[in-house]
Amino acid sequence: MSQAVAWKQLMLRSVKKNSSLPSAKYIQVATVKNNGRPANRTVVFRGFLEDTTKLTFVTDSRSAKIDDIGHTPFSEICWYFPITREQFRLGGQLSVISKESGVEEELKLRQAAWARMSSGGQEQFLWPTPGKPRQGVRDLVQGPVPGDQDPPPETFCLVVMDVEEVDHLQLKGNRRHRYWKSTQIEGGWEEEETNP
Amino acid sequence: MSQAVAWKQLMLRSVKKNSSLPSAKYIQVATVKNNGRPANRTVVFRGFLEDTTKLTFVTDSRSAKIDDIGHTPFSEICWYFPITREQFRLGGQLSVISKESGVEEELKLRQAAWARMSSGGQEQFLWPTPGKPRQGVRDLVQGPVPGDQDPPPETFCLVVMDVEEVDHLQLKGNRRHRYWKSTQIEGGWEEEETNP
Repeated sequence: MSQAVAWKQLMLRSVKKNSSLPSAKYIQVATVKNNGRPANRTVVFRGFLEDTTKLTFVTDSRSAKIDDIGHTPFSEICWYFPITREQFRLGGQLSVISKESGVEEELKLRQAAWARMSSGGQEQFLWPTPGKPRQGVRDLVQGPVPGDQDPPPETFCLVVMDVEEVDHLQLKGNRRHRYWKSTQIEGGWEEEETNP
Repeated sequence: MSQAVAWKQLMLRSVKKNSSLPSAKYIQVATVKNNGRPANRTVVFRGFLEDTTKLTFVTDSRSAKIDDIGHTPFSEICWYFPITREQFRLGGQLSVISKESGVEEELKLRQAAWARMSSGGQEQFLWPTPGKPRQGVRDLVQGPVPGDQDPPPETFCLVVMDVEEVDHLQLKGNRRHRYWKSTQIEGGWEEEETNP
């Protein structure tokens, strides 16, 4: 069903139109820390789970955002596309698929996400704990990097946002639309044009 | 004092080095909504208040972020610079300078911010309420746009972040530093290198 969801089609079109800029796949993920203050950082968009409206990125199990998500799963992702000059804001809940997941299907998704990473991206999961004081380590990579088909490092997590609402702003033409999951139709979405 | 603050100097250098990309002045501002969920949107960086570490942007008094800030003033700003490949995360408290401010110095800052806006940017404050259903308005601008020296529209607000902590990540070379306001030295900052 979800291939037909309007905002997802628009977003994937924007991904394509902005593909000459590597940073156009960088998205800003806001969470709430356990002290009630917001956190905000850049991650790389890693695609949707097949034909769903579930968006994915990866993170390190030792990163602060894992604590945030454990405290409150709600997030808003802000995605600005420089070439087409549009912004998508995606609200929804995050869930983390770690080594500890007991669901076989989830572990398959985690393995597949690992296999799709570049070797540079994979290496980062062998780095020392992010955000901790640096102890003069020259070579960050600590230990061998598992192959694409090997079990990923324990630190490797796939994060999934189940998107619930979308705000799409087009600076070209000053158009803005919001989308939200229908409470009437299973898998359906409602849409409204709003003032920019 | 603050001209000498290390992270601010690095940031202003990055602004210069990325100035060929207009979108490199776009920053993502996270706040917490009154339902406890995060919000995240792109705004334009409008400089620091003179030689302080107070960062500014502008917003419409009718925008949702004004409600968020009224509820909880804490924010984290995420700023990614594509050309130099670095990210700054700025944590701090936001304060809003609206038409209602009773402080003359604040109203001067608001007037000066208005005068620095492009005419296209100024017009947006005469648009109908952002985020409300669009009523088939063709011409968004409702009413005359005040001149640079005239009183700004009632909707025009200057927002100031009093930066308290900074996380600076450089993808080139994989370096990361955090900075935080010193509790020992008035106006001073502490610094630490951390794992990226």
